Amino acid sequence: MAVGIPKGMRDFSPEVLSKRNYIFDEIKKVYSAYGYRAIETPAMEKLSVLTGKYGDEGDKLLFKVLNSGDFLKKANDTDLQERKLNKLIPKLCSRGLRYDLTVPFARYVVQHRNEISFPFKRYQIQPVWRADRPQKGRYREFYQCDADIIGSNTMLNELEIVQMIDEVFTALNLQVSIKINNRKLLNGIAEFIGKPEKFSEITAAIDKVEKIGTEKVFEELQNQGLSKAETQKLQPFLELKGDFETKIAEIKKTLEKTPSGKAGIEETEELFSYIRMFSFNNHIELDLSLARGLNYYTGAIFEVKSNEVPMGSICGGGRYDDLTGIFGMKDVSGVGISFGADRIYDVLEKLGRFPEQSSSGIRLMFTNFGEREAKHGLRLLAEIRKLGISAIIYPDASKLKKQMKFANNNNIPYVVLVGEDELNSGKYTLKNMGSGEQQLLDKGELIRSLNPEKT
Amino acid sequence: MAVGIPKGMRDFSPEVLSKRNYIFDEIKKVYSAYGYRAIETPAMEKLSVLTGKYGDEGDKLLFKVLNSGDFLKKANDTDLQERKLNKLIPKLCSRGLRYDLTVPFARYVVQHRNEISFPFKRYQIQPVWRADRPQKGRYREFYQCDADIIGSNTMLNELEIVQMIDEVFTALNLQVSIKINNRKLLNGIAEFIGKPEKFSEITAAIDKVEKIGTEKVFEELQNQGLSKAETQKLQPFLELKGDFETKIAEIKKTLEKTPSGKAGIEETEELFSYIRMFSFNNHIELDLSLARGLNYYTGAIFEVKSNEVPMGSICGGGRYDDLTGIFGMKDVSGVGISFGADRIYDVLEKLGRFPEQSSSGIRLMFTNFGEREAKHGLRLLAEIRKLGISAIIYPDASKLKKQMKFANNNNIPYVVLVGEDELNSGKYTLKNMGSGEQQLLDKGELIRSLNPEKT
Repeated sequence: MAVGIPKGMRDFSPEVLSKRNYIFDEIKKVYSAYGYRAIETPAMEKLSVLTGKYGDEGDKLLFKVLNSGDFLKKANDTDLQERKLNKLIPKLCSRGLRYDLTVPFARYVVQHRNEISFPFKRYQIQPVWRADRPQKGRYREFYQCDADIIGSNTMLNELEIVQMIDEVFTALNLQVSIKINNRKLLNGIAEFIGKPEKFSEITAAIDKVEKIGTEKVFEELQNQGLSKAETQKLQPFLELKGDFETKIAEIKKTLEKTPSGKAGIEETEELFSYIRMFSFNNHIELDLSLARGLNYYTGAIFEVKSNEVPMGSICGGGRYDDLTGIFGMKDVSGVGISFGADRIYDVLEKLGRFPEQSSSGIRLMFTNFGEREAKHGLRLLAEIRKLGISAIIYPDASKLKKQMKFANNNNIPYVVLVGEDELNSGKYTLKNMGSGEQQLLDKGELIRSLNPEKT
Repeated sequence: MAVGIPKGMRDFSPEVLSKRNYIFDEIKKVYSAYGYRAIETPAMEKLSVLTGKYGDEGDKLLFKVLNSGDFLKKANDTDLQERKLNKLIPKLCSRGLRYDLTVPFARYVVQHRNEISFPFKRYQIQPVWRADRPQKGRYREFYQCDADIIGSNTMLNELEIVQMIDEVFTALNLQVSIKINNRKLLNGIAEFIGKPEKFSEITAAIDKVEKIGTEKVFEELQNQGLSKAETQKLQPFLELKGDFETKIAEIKKTLEKTPSGKAGIEETEELFSYIRMFSFNNHIELDLSLARGLNYYTGAIFEVKSNEVPMGSICGGGRYDDLTGIFGMKDVSGVGISFGADRIYDVLEKLGRFPEQSSSGIRLMFTNFGEREAKHGLRLLAEIRKLGISAIIYPDASKLKKQMKFANNNNIPYVVLVGEDELNSGKYTLKNMGSGEQQLLDKGELIRSLNPEKT
């Protein structure tokens, strides 16, 4: 039988998994310090909960789960004969795999609204599934690491998002830029130009200017129906430079006259007034070209890029005003953030920035030359394990060469040799596999040398 | 829209999840100390990998994932018209959700055989899915917590299984009985009676004797084709009492003459000779009535029951000789163990044995009476969080009553009040929500009182 896993899926071996969990652990520590608490939702949701939430393309990418038993029970003959796929899907499948953590969270909040004390801070680190075409860095199963606070409108929440981003990347020893924008500023620009209906085209143009230059951007916009005069009104937004104060002063000159722009300026100034209270390890900037999640976010927008490795966004989020509206619970505002674990993994890997212990496993191996020798070490082994040190005895009485090769293959830094000499002396030979150094030690000495802090 | 989750699935709220994770964490610590390393496999496996591994009933309980795009492409008209479900399943679905962690692990080992250094110790804590009829305590999505060592034959591995069980339940503060049997002893009994072909009936009978008594057991066996004389040869095995030495001496009288029985006795004596080297916190006994996983295990069999709450097995495992044979890799022996997290959860809950901190979340809340008051606390809040203490500021300037109610609902033990007085004095009022006691403290005093150890 051909053994393999489905396309776009991954096995996580011990080395890779412990590195990935290092990232999760650092994120969890920060989420938890900020009072976000973990929840989990089931892998499967009702298909009706998922369908229509991610656009037509998203609906196609949902993994649907075939109903159990007679899965054709609800399908009619005509639809089957004519192979009406879209009609058949809801007949054959009542469940789908979660596509992200946001819709399940919205469903969770609505379902449990009477048990939850708002404002509610939750984080969720679970896999999601998408039937995307697999390619480098894109998988059909991947983890999302989301935190959201919902039921609160104040800018303190946005501040905390920025603090958490800074702390996570500081903990991971990565240098990043935290880019901040506000959907209302973007609305303000479209209003200022007098073409609110061209909102998408205008924001796309601002986003592109660095790549293709002002002239090409203007050309494109004119092709999309803006006049020359209108496009030129964009000029100041394309040329924004300097620190926050300089940028916001420039923006005020124009956008303060538009209702959305005014609100966006106020929100952004409030957020930066909080930000200025603290010193951050990472660069924080206002960036109007940030157009993340435009159909979704209604206020502040966040995006994080590595300063060290060229790569897309490694973290992002923003303020939304109506997460739970899709399930009938109106006017619940929130702010959310999501760390891209796979990309962060790639950045850490490229920079060799994973701490050594994050990939380490077993620290110590006892050799095994037979039952008598093995038994000589077993009680000491048990004591070492009770100190929380990962330790093994090679389970079979194989040749020394084979046992040492095993220790090397598994990067085990210490080996305890127990042979005839050690049996007679009641001592143990500790071999440092890195230096090759060997020491004859008694029980207490051996434990102390492994665990200098605790003894 | 009706909001809900699919039948048999669960949301895990923060309280429940932190309790469940407490169980996982204790299991992980022990697995890790014994040199087992975590892996993860994808939720979906090829349907061909899963089908036929769990019997006909298991095949029905597999969740199948509908193919993307034209899912009827491979289905022929006749099968569709005649609704040939079993023929259609492999045409419509090439993937299924994992049903347990054992088959995916076997697939993993075979697929990665050239990267793995054997003997290989892995643990895996991931959800599995079964389209079972949901009932109390049985879910369609639940976690399994498996550890296996494969590629080693020695009894040291079985010893470690017993040690790990003892340590996990000691860490969880639960009293259990660890029952040990050996498949070869059961084979020996069937050989001794001269009816090896009635193996299943005989072991089922031994298992039932405590419930229905010797007479009824004999009656049943005679109905199933054993003679009176044959059933009476079972007598000594049904009446086994006493400590290990007494039981094994009794067993030797009869089973030592059968080939399987002799091997079973040797293995069991060897295992108990290792066990006797250590003192355990939990009761360990030889129990011939243990008939766990008979089609699967070939040597030692383990099962754990709570001494404090009547409930089925909360942990089990055993030795198998051919895990990977289903995927063409022969003669790989191993030992595995699995903790039943849901049942352990129920036992801990019934006994009120979850440690307090395992369900605690946020430890401290700053009140919020407006921007000035909030800002007075923000830097202190940041310092507290950097100590790893989960702390929040109530994000909105709501009424005190509402904020205190929130703290109570979330079991937050400390509240810091920051109002006009505190602003003027530069101090903070710390309220102990349990005792109601309030203290006016400066920054340093407040941090010390929260975190006496670290400062």
